Amino acid sequence: MTKHLLIKPDPANPRLTRGVSGVDHNGEAQDIRVVEERPLTIYLNAQEIVTAMTIGDFPEYLAVGYLRNQGMLLADDVITRVDFDEEVETVVVRTERKTDYEEKLKKKTRTSGCAVGTVFGDMMEGLEGVKLPSTPLKTSWLYSLAHQINTMPSLYLEAGAIHGSVLCREDVPLVYMEDVGRHNAVDKIAGWMMLEGESADDKIMYTTGRLTSEMVIKTAMMGIPTLVSRSGFTAWGVEIARQVGLTVIGRMRGKRFICLSGEARLEWDADMRAVKGEG
Amino acid sequence: MTKHLLIKPDPANPRLTRGVSGVDHNGEAQDIRVVEERPLTIYLNAQEIVTAMTIGDFPEYLAVGYLRNQGMLLADDVITRVDFDEEVETVVVRTERKTDYEEKLKKKTRTSGCAVGTVFGDMMEGLEGVKLPSTPLKTSWLYSLAHQINTMPSLYLEAGAIHGSVLCREDVPLVYMEDVGRHNAVDKIAGWMMLEGESADDKIMYTTGRLTSEMVIKTAMMGIPTLVSRSGFTAWGVEIARQVGLTVIGRMRGKRFICLSGEARLEWDADMRAVKGEG
Repeated sequence: MTKHLLIKPDPANPRLTRGVSGVDHNGEAQDIRVVEERPLTIYLNAQEIVTAMTIGDFPEYLAVGYLRNQGMLLADDVITRVDFDEEVETVVVRTERKTDYEEKLKKKTRTSGCAVGTVFGDMMEGLEGVKLPSTPLKTSWLYSLAHQINTMPSLYLEAGAIHGSVLCREDVPLVYMEDVGRHNAVDKIAGWMMLEGESADDKIMYTTGRLTSEMVIKTAMMGIPTLVSRSGFTAWGVEIARQVGLTVIGRMRGKRFICLSGEARLEWDADMRAVKGEG
Repeated sequence: MTKHLLIKPDPANPRLTRGVSGVDHNGEAQDIRVVEERPLTIYLNAQEIVTAMTIGDFPEYLAVGYLRNQGMLLADDVITRVDFDEEVETVVVRTERKTDYEEKLKKKTRTSGCAVGTVFGDMMEGLEGVKLPSTPLKTSWLYSLAHQINTMPSLYLEAGAIHGSVLCREDVPLVYMEDVGRHNAVDKIAGWMMLEGESADDKIMYTTGRLTSEMVIKTAMMGIPTLVSRSGFTAWGVEIARQVGLTVIGRMRGKRFICLSGEARLEWDADMRAVKGEG
């Protein structure tokens, strides 16, 4: 069982940020670093599925995780190859199973809400019958994770304008992904889990983004029983979390948090005197 | 010429938030208000176009603005009716012109990046030849707008987990829209502008969201020459802004901001001693 950070942010990677020149509020010239944003076109076998805007690291994980989270890769699919071509900005995921999502792609256009960044109709369908395990959650883990994640060097701290998602177990951050699209960060984690054959039952998903219905649905579809965020909730996100038995912690800053689903699973073991407040 | 706030946030509207119960970090019961998130299906004449997840205010503006920003409503289209049916959560926009976007809808599935929340391929196409007017921008307006917007009662201050976009002229906020999807907030402004016949040349778009390529493209497509945000930039957002001549101000907090495009249009008239810093 892995006990340490496997993938962490890479703010020093020159492919992920670019220096640009401008002026500041005093009219003085400033060179700042801003995050990159590139198109990546994802194919499943011979079929073009989607073009995502991404920071560009881990294209293979993004492609596999996107397809998995859309239900186009099944849990037991055998992936035979994943080819990334940097020049033409494409990833091709190949499977043993013959796939054809022509009809699904057509249907998407009709039911999907690009306005919120995902294919909603399909995702709600996939949620029927999902019931997550009642994994306990210690409050000491929450504070330890938040502290580790918030103080780790990251593109977020370096350049901003980016979202982070971190796959954790107990008080250990395992895989910390960043991306310009917050759903990409989650999809990269889903891709990593699928390619590494990692279990979901004992995991915690930490995100910098809001706890919207989409984020809740994605986490539930991945089988992860706990979702934690610095940010707030939407009503529908809470409703779905309660339906599927997802523990949801939001507005987690310093000593404070709010739990709106799964509170019976919380174990109150944190020494609150040792937890630092936030500015 | 309008000189005052026409549409402002409505945090007291009971349709926009819901009370939910949970526990806080001390294990104490808490009732908090969270924002609603509802599906809204948009039709153009007989054709179903998209289902957006929205907070649910101003469905008519959202539908018209979405269609306009996707290039499905043209600038000179005559809108004959806009019908919102609350029960089935649909808006139907009817035009004099016969419309058929069957092919466009098909194409979208192939080229669009739902991962970033919009239909990217199409939007880049629409941008060719766009050149925005060189409208001057006084720094005193920036500080005045930021102060007014940040202190106005809003769903953001009340419940969080929401984005705001504000259409402004000089130092006057005119239309302040909020939504769970930040693109919805911009689309609602676009819909308002189209239905009210409002000009774009003299306007400023203020957003709480990041200055990604999408946000830059949408603002440019709307013909608005200035985009201001509390949040940061992406490299491609800056690149496109420079191409089309969009003035872009980011990281605007307290006395500070960074201008990465259009700095020659800035007029440095603010009395910096009078501008308040931010905590």
